[in-house]
Amino acid sequence: MQSYALTPSRRVRRTPFSDRVERAGVTAYTVYNHMLLPTAFAGLEADYHHLKRHVQLWDVGCERQVEVRGREAARLLQMLTPRDLRGMTPGRCYYTPMVDETGGMLNDPVTVKLAEDRYWISVADSDLLLWAKGLAYGFRLEVDVTEPEVWPLAVQGPKAEALMARVFGPAVREIRFFRFGRLDFQGQDLVVARSGYSKQGGFEIYVDSAAIAGPLWDALMERGADLEVRAGCPNLIERIEAQLLSYGNDMTRENTPHECGLGRFCNTLAAIGCAGRDALLRIALDGPLRQIRSLSIEGEAVPPCLEPWPLYAPGSATPVGQVTSAAWSPDFATNVAIGMVQMTHWTGGTQVEVEAPDGRRTAVVRSASFI
Amino acid sequence: MQSYALTPSRRVRRTPFSDRVERAGVTAYTVYNHMLLPTAFAGLEADYHHLKRHVQLWDVGCERQVEVRGREAARLLQMLTPRDLRGMTPGRCYYTPMVDETGGMLNDPVTVKLAEDRYWISVADSDLLLWAKGLAYGFRLEVDVTEPEVWPLAVQGPKAEALMARVFGPAVREIRFFRFGRLDFQGQDLVVARSGYSKQGGFEIYVDSAAIAGPLWDALMERGADLEVRAGCPNLIERIEAQLLSYGNDMTRENTPHECGLGRFCNTLAAIGCAGRDALLRIALDGPLRQIRSLSIEGEAVPPCLEPWPLYAPGSATPVGQVTSAAWSPDFATNVAIGMVQMTHWTGGTQVEVEAPDGRRTAVVRSASFI
Repeated sequence: MQSYALTPSRRVRRTPFSDRVERAGVTAYTVYNHMLLPTAFAGLEADYHHLKRHVQLWDVGCERQVEVRGREAARLLQMLTPRDLRGMTPGRCYYTPMVDETGGMLNDPVTVKLAEDRYWISVADSDLLLWAKGLAYGFRLEVDVTEPEVWPLAVQGPKAEALMARVFGPAVREIRFFRFGRLDFQGQDLVVARSGYSKQGGFEIYVDSAAIAGPLWDALMERGADLEVRAGCPNLIERIEAQLLSYGNDMTRENTPHECGLGRFCNTLAAIGCAGRDALLRIALDGPLRQIRSLSIEGEAVPPCLEPWPLYAPGSATPVGQVTSAAWSPDFATNVAIGMVQMTHWTGGTQVEVEAPDGRRTAVVRSASFI
Repeated sequence: MQSYALTPSRRVRRTPFSDRVERAGVTAYTVYNHMLLPTAFAGLEADYHHLKRHVQLWDVGCERQVEVRGREAARLLQMLTPRDLRGMTPGRCYYTPMVDETGGMLNDPVTVKLAEDRYWISVADSDLLLWAKGLAYGFRLEVDVTEPEVWPLAVQGPKAEALMARVFGPAVREIRFFRFGRLDFQGQDLVVARSGYSKQGGFEIYVDSAAIAGPLWDALMERGADLEVRAGCPNLIERIEAQLLSYGNDMTRENTPHECGLGRFCNTLAAIGCAGRDALLRIALDGPLRQIRSLSIEGEAVPPCLEPWPLYAPGSATPVGQVTSAAWSPDFATNVAIGMVQMTHWTGGTQVEVEAPDGRRTAVVRSASFI
């Protein structure tokens, strides 16, 4: 595969960590929410092994926040998602599928409840801000919807807690999964959540001051030298092994949350007010016709998945789904993949065929993720 | 400036022209509306000279269409823009600043009126679809808002008309500026507008069939061989010379259309129903405090503008604006730039200082664009 340069411009925004990231040797980027997201440092596989053994700092400043505040903030939030938010208390983080009025996925953010009347929606790659603003305006809600200056920094890997405790003190150890605390760094209160886009454990620091970004990065690097801390980034191989979905890759507006395997985050009957509720009620009861699955693909390392690869019943031309993310996994010594598979073929162990760019290959549907 | 690779994935969508573009030797891309947009072939300056002399094919499939259709389509369109759309007839293309309820720019698309109840909004780099859908849902409008499978192909340069006439016949010469016709290519009716993101003249073909994209590209290349047709792309130097604005670069949600010099496309008093009308009424009467200007920047070729460069009154620390796009112009033998300049310094000929990454330089505000 040939490689192309990314042309820089203001429109593809830098983050307050970009200078550090470039000094740390980033070699490739993608663009995410009109912003730079690093994708490689030592290389996809080297980064992968390091992430599973040590600890990494990830510039995920591109996880823009949609801030919703005001008397009707909770009402707007419930309009956005089929997840029942009534029990959500300040201090909680919820993974929230967000849907349009047809039940199509618009985003799959983590929503952070800062206070009864204030939320941060940490969005994947779509301008969810515009949908939220449209609903707020259309329903004349008493809310303000903005994109504040917040750039998350993720600390991920098995040694993440050890590193974080050195910089933020032992209180960080008390933060439970998908909860957040407010911890001090150089006199500044920062929202620190136990969350992140890997299965290796870790935290996300919601850095809401550009001035503190550099000093925080440097402090984590300095205190973590003996933990072998490095700059890193969401790792394609690891996130496929863990079946962590990527909006725009594994799902789009075409898909319902149920197709995305996110039914467990939907309480469609209870989510009164959700814009997509009417459209989702039937599928919430009957289930979807196709669903996200992990797959292994036989043969040598696959090329990057640039367009959906069709899935077929073995030896036939009958389409049964598609693969949207794939990579060679050193730990599983196979190609790991994420795809959408039709009900007839989604049972774990079912053999299918995938039309990769270099020809048809045998693939096996799995009943669960790899890790 | 170091160059970084762009990591490919399905999320950064290819267009039906991408294979042709890569065979034609594209070297760099940017990401625009979650899609690949070529940025260089022979190089920025070689592409620039060629564009001004010959004719180029541009894969601008990333200009996604927001299709609005239904009984209340015109009502929704007027909600989006302060431009008075009442006189717009089918067959017309309007440049339409689109604003939120605060009058902040959300996009600056060309809107194509296909029929009384059907529009295509050819959007710049933001998910305007989500704002339009939000308003449609909030106001329960009788419209359908979708992103159809349409990938524009631009044919730009002084020889564009000659080339187009060879492929589409002489009818193409009858199409006036910012009008469109429906012309046949291999039995398929295509919307062809006289428009495009350069000042060199040309057309945009709204290709609404992936199957026809390759044959159309090939036909234009074959018939244009003696016109020296080449693959090209929007050219940074030429568009700065022409003061063609770039959403996300030269303006953001922070700016009103009046600040962007787009007051002539606003009829705020008349645009009853526009979501931003209340917010814009005063500025429409009084004018803005700062406005887009072309500038020349002295000294050697500037580096790419990755973040706004502050402008100062000469020899002082008094901020008077910012530069957001800049490049060396071979034809004008100076650095050409676009920036936002405060009223106190926006008169043509005013000298200011710009804080470029390599130090302060003298700059001169111009009363008009370079070309």
